[in-house]
Amino acid sequence: MDGEISKFTIEEKLSCQSLTPQTTVNLLDSVDVFLFDCDGVIWKGDALIDGVSDTLDTLRAMGKKLVFVTNNSTKSRRQYAKKFHSLGISVSEDEIFSSSFAAAMYLKANDFPKEKKVYVIGEEGILEELELAGFTGVGGPEDGKKTAHLKPNSLFEHDKSVGAVVVGLDQYINFYKLQYGTLCIRENPGCLFIATNRDAVGHLTDLQEWPGAGCMVAAICGSTQKEPIVVGKPSTFLMEFLLQKFNIPTSRMCMVGDRLDTDILFGQNAGCRTLLVLSGVTNLSDLQDSSNHIRPEYYTSTLSDIISLFNNYQSSF
Amino acid sequence: MDGEISKFTIEEKLSCQSLTPQTTVNLLDSVDVFLFDCDGVIWKGDALIDGVSDTLDTLRAMGKKLVFVTNNSTKSRRQYAKKFHSLGISVSEDEIFSSSFAAAMYLKANDFPKEKKVYVIGEEGILEELELAGFTGVGGPEDGKKTAHLKPNSLFEHDKSVGAVVVGLDQYINFYKLQYGTLCIRENPGCLFIATNRDAVGHLTDLQEWPGAGCMVAAICGSTQKEPIVVGKPSTFLMEFLLQKFNIPTSRMCMVGDRLDTDILFGQNAGCRTLLVLSGVTNLSDLQDSSNHIRPEYYTSTLSDIISLFNNYQSSF
Repeated sequence: MDGEISKFTIEEKLSCQSLTPQTTVNLLDSVDVFLFDCDGVIWKGDALIDGVSDTLDTLRAMGKKLVFVTNNSTKSRRQYAKKFHSLGISVSEDEIFSSSFAAAMYLKANDFPKEKKVYVIGEEGILEELELAGFTGVGGPEDGKKTAHLKPNSLFEHDKSVGAVVVGLDQYINFYKLQYGTLCIRENPGCLFIATNRDAVGHLTDLQEWPGAGCMVAAICGSTQKEPIVVGKPSTFLMEFLLQKFNIPTSRMCMVGDRLDTDILFGQNAGCRTLLVLSGVTNLSDLQDSSNHIRPEYYTSTLSDIISLFNNYQSSF
Repeated sequence: MDGEISKFTIEEKLSCQSLTPQTTVNLLDSVDVFLFDCDGVIWKGDALIDGVSDTLDTLRAMGKKLVFVTNNSTKSRRQYAKKFHSLGISVSEDEIFSSSFAAAMYLKANDFPKEKKVYVIGEEGILEELELAGFTGVGGPEDGKKTAHLKPNSLFEHDKSVGAVVVGLDQYINFYKLQYGTLCIRENPGCLFIATNRDAVGHLTDLQEWPGAGCMVAAICGSTQKEPIVVGKPSTFLMEFLLQKFNIPTSRMCMVGDRLDTDILFGQNAGCRTLLVLSGVTNLSDLQDSSNHIRPEYYTSTLSDIISLFNNYQSSF
């Protein structure tokens, strides 16, 4: 960038550096827990990103705690552990914090009455986490094939005992679910509107992005004219669980992600160190664009750079 | 309201009066064109509101021009004329200004290239108006039964010649359409994002409200992070056509509607007189709520009050 007019000021440049052998060593020395986003960091769709497996092994061998924090609510923690295993990576359920789990934990933390129901616009993962937490989820995949019939003198009925609507990514979104969720939020007194997250798009397949939970959540905002409680990133709701689990200050945690507005903002909101990887939705020009005001502490191409840069440093002595 | 603490100040009260025999006569004297919203004013779902037919006949007999301005994009002007006739009211196509027509007219007014296509998230009305204006609409009802397959190494393809996405009320909304529209807006250079309107909900059936175009439009805002061009109310885009048609100043037009944020705002934005009827989505407490800042000039229960109040005035002499 020398000789060019950079869009970053000198101060901003200092606060967002490309990872080097020296800064990698410093980061590894000062961090005990690495929090990883999954999509765009660990995998893309169902394809593992190169070098991830070895990197995670090496970090574990160094004694680092690893945590996987994903906004994708389509799976439960159990289903995510299964996905990791199928990709040859050993991860335990309690190392995984998905937004589906966060939704269930939010209800638990707020003493949501067990006799009330939760209507789900989303997929299996949310329903499974609700059930594990002792709540009754309704809707979800089951309502994906239902049709709303617009008939004169006929009411579309909804369950008055629904006390919360949880909205996440839903490939089977339809008018039936939109009307059901809208009626619960508008007509059931005190009904909560919970969003797993608001990601605009996500790499649901390896080759391209698809509308994310932010699309379905916005639809319900549009019909109810209400704003949701967001439990996934960048909300720091999950951080309370991480702090309880590890008893380590957030300044000794590093959030690694591919998204500025969820991962990096989440890390910053929680007081963590932050590392952006360019293997997902954000590229260098997005990062350096003048419209972007979210600067990670460091950025690098891909997760495995941590190990190659560390090795470079070691071999220079 | 005497003796009670009103949420309106005296000034606001003066600017929003219940229609009386005297103000009705004054209004009728000073207005040449009545613009009517349909849903909640003329009908609810498929049921005509009491007294509407006689009221329209009387207004025509008084020499008033009548125009019907509806945000509901599911029908074309031709289909609306048919609906009026089926309810026993004689209305010609060119008295009807629907948001489906507005979308086609927006493209025409902006010299949208005929060789480009228009992707429709919406129903038959939009496609019919596009065709009548000489444009090629794709998507719409046809894509209501399609499924998006999320497969590895497989691309969801979209037509690169789509130059505009029109989003309106769509009872057959699905993930396929959301992905298609999102890809066109995000990836086709210069692709327009046009919303027929942003009504949160609408009386699609006589007994209850359903998510409106505002729900589908918000979904696409959520996935594209872009804001649409709105062609229906409260945008005054249609007013240009009305002015050309009648050559009457807007101060001699009166917008009659049941919604504050579309009908009354549209009337005010255009410089028309405004009359709110309480036969649709807005009730008196919504109107008088401190959070509401849109005040019509007059309000009354239902459209036929215009005639009964006028007759009361006549019989008092």
